[in-house]
Amino acid sequence: MKSKELGRRRFLKNGAALAGLAVGGIRPASGETTGSDKPESRPKDLHEYGERSRFETAVRTPSEAKPYSFYVKQRLTPLQDSVGIITPSALHFFNSHGYEPPDIDPRQHRLMIHGMVDRPTTLTVDEIKRLPSVSRVHFVECAGNSSPSHLKEKTDRGTIQPLHGWTSCSEWTGVPLSLLLKEAGLQKGGSWIVAEGAEEGKHTKSIPIEKAMDDVMVAFGQNGEAVRPEQGYPLRLVVPGWEGINNVKWLRRIKVVDQPYMAKMESTGYPALRPSLKGKALWFNFEMGVKSVITFPSDSHQLAGPGFHEISGLAWSGKGTIRRVEVSTDGGKTWKEAEIQLPVHRIAHTRFRLPWTWNGEETVLQSRASDDQGEVQPTLDDLAKLWGVGQDYWQTTTNIVNHFNPIQAWRITRDGSVHNAML
Amino acid sequence: MKSKELGRRRFLKNGAALAGLAVGGIRPASGETTGSDKPESRPKDLHEYGERSRFETAVRTPSEAKPYSFYVKQRLTPLQDSVGIITPSALHFFNSHGYEPPDIDPRQHRLMIHGMVDRPTTLTVDEIKRLPSVSRVHFVECAGNSSPSHLKEKTDRGTIQPLHGWTSCSEWTGVPLSLLLKEAGLQKGGSWIVAEGAEEGKHTKSIPIEKAMDDVMVAFGQNGEAVRPEQGYPLRLVVPGWEGINNVKWLRRIKVVDQPYMAKMESTGYPALRPSLKGKALWFNFEMGVKSVITFPSDSHQLAGPGFHEISGLAWSGKGTIRRVEVSTDGGKTWKEAEIQLPVHRIAHTRFRLPWTWNGEETVLQSRASDDQGEVQPTLDDLAKLWGVGQDYWQTTTNIVNHFNPIQAWRITRDGSVHNAML
Repeated sequence: MKSKELGRRRFLKNGAALAGLAVGGIRPASGETTGSDKPESRPKDLHEYGERSRFETAVRTPSEAKPYSFYVKQRLTPLQDSVGIITPSALHFFNSHGYEPPDIDPRQHRLMIHGMVDRPTTLTVDEIKRLPSVSRVHFVECAGNSSPSHLKEKTDRGTIQPLHGWTSCSEWTGVPLSLLLKEAGLQKGGSWIVAEGAEEGKHTKSIPIEKAMDDVMVAFGQNGEAVRPEQGYPLRLVVPGWEGINNVKWLRRIKVVDQPYMAKMESTGYPALRPSLKGKALWFNFEMGVKSVITFPSDSHQLAGPGFHEISGLAWSGKGTIRRVEVSTDGGKTWKEAEIQLPVHRIAHTRFRLPWTWNGEETVLQSRASDDQGEVQPTLDDLAKLWGVGQDYWQTTTNIVNHFNPIQAWRITRDGSVHNAML
Repeated sequence: MKSKELGRRRFLKNGAALAGLAVGGIRPASGETTGSDKPESRPKDLHEYGERSRFETAVRTPSEAKPYSFYVKQRLTPLQDSVGIITPSALHFFNSHGYEPPDIDPRQHRLMIHGMVDRPTTLTVDEIKRLPSVSRVHFVECAGNSSPSHLKEKTDRGTIQPLHGWTSCSEWTGVPLSLLLKEAGLQKGGSWIVAEGAEEGKHTKSIPIEKAMDDVMVAFGQNGEAVRPEQGYPLRLVVPGWEGINNVKWLRRIKVVDQPYMAKMESTGYPALRPSLKGKALWFNFEMGVKSVITFPSDSHQLAGPGFHEISGLAWSGKGTIRRVEVSTDGGKTWKEAEIQLPVHRIAHTRFRLPWTWNGEETVLQSRASDDQGEVQPTLDDLAKLWGVGQDYWQTTTNIVNHFNPIQAWRITRDGSVHNAML
């Protein structure tokens, strides 16, 4: 207990970020927020806390998908119904590797920071909320998003929601992890953190210290209110642009260490095992590439007829800011620059739109995104060459193929129906 | 019926914005979205459509407030719990002048555009969704926000939620009204529009054509999904920066006319009746001024003790973009520039934050916002002088005082409790 008490007393007092700010001891700060004595009483009154119209029916659909050598259920975002760049929190995708979101009382929850730090400490949620915070719009994307190799059901591979719906975008609010680590006093040689969640499976992830000290947040807010239970209530990591599994939910522990821990998920489910690696595995593969998907029209839509339609979609990059989205309405022969919704946020979903007049003939629609790091979304051919694999590599289910970001093609047939042209 | 059919056939064909785009007749486009045959079946499965944690208890509280000569119930946003700039749709304030939000089936709903236009037309929701759309982040604020004169209960005047919670901020998605009016063919002399809602009270509002052709949207999307029932499902006007009553909800009709219509609300509840006007009324008063409110700490909070706290709040202006927020922690003697959350959106809530170390003594916190139009949030003194009234003018309930935007002061007492220092 001594080091914990010491840590708590010194917290904010000796750290670099807040040098000179005197703290007269941090007491449990439950009175700082408008808490209720009866947290179990959920309001039923829609005037108190509203619901969507009963005529709206978009839902997160389940899909059997493979983060291990076997399948677990995931819940994916209905991108085909999306407008703008914010994903409603109620529809944010989630993948907990088979575990149910825990029901955490925030007054009981603690975040421990320990390992190679001078002042190991344990913080309450209210203590964290008291610190300097930031809000930023970021997507979170599962490493396996868009890859048919993960999907058990063949029909899912043609369907936008199970195929591409493993990404969602929120305005996240939280405390920079760098601030917490500085306050705890990073020791020399501390080169990785290991973050751990409080759910049944205790998901654990190693993250290099350079990223941890850069733009990672310990988030308590999502789209203007508390992080939702499926997204890690009351605390989660947001690790901008990196594979979803880094964004540890129900965060309860950060240990500073001198090497990655090779925890369950990072040693079993996520390393890349491509033929071109000649028997070796690419163990860590952090940043998600540049990607785009036309969300309207996509396979769940039916064009009412020839004439004007607005093509609309989402683009994003784990490496930076979307600079450009080009759209082809003639199977890739010609490309037009789409209009991008402003302001464009770094490492965030970016809405693009292009006016289009359909002449009623069969055609193929595609979108190609570029970011400010010079990355351009590849064709399927480009990706196959880069990885040294055949074009059917991602159609099998014997491989787990992550970071799959080729240009998505939708075929419009003369009856106005829309089909995945990649199959 | 002839003009309606004519309008429908010509729509998108002859208009200026989409000149040259051939439309082969717009059919009811219900197949264009992933509709359900059973819209009444509301999902109960939280994996399908999630809810917040049962430990979160922030709600829209009711307040008896005065838009007429009598009081009606409004529901206000808990600004004291806000983080970032997005208001959760479930917590967006609403004031329907006493009427309940209607339960509209979007497949039955129509928007009629008529009056001084060449091609009067009636559009389905799906037809509107098919047109070129935009998404922008904007606040909507009731004209009476922040004014104690509206509040029946004296305790409400000291409380942030009933006093300042008549403002909320969303990412709105919709079709520019200018596009619809151009398509309908504005006639010469059409100098106003009259917009009408479908609720029981048929709220009606006159808006000058210059604004209608500028940045007004017919919105169908809010924060990534359909506009919520309390905010006008399935269609509403968003009239950036103007008094809330312009943002007509459950929008069913737009008539182009050559003069304002002096409808119920604009002739009874909202004109300004200040002494300085010497018996005349300021009938229309469109733009909301520059304002800011410290949301933490405010009256519903209790500081846990001296030491570090982050002061956080919201600033906004109906005239443009927030450029600067200054905060005083010593009763107005000195001011420090707060950090503003980027990117700053035009006519949107803007989050500001300032690190603060409380020494445990009684003090007063204030914030002062400025926008890119050179407007600076006034003191109470400044406002009284400008309007030619005494300082107690807004404390009475015999006047309806709108556009009340003086600097809000919160007094921190030695026990860590927070009080409205304006009373």
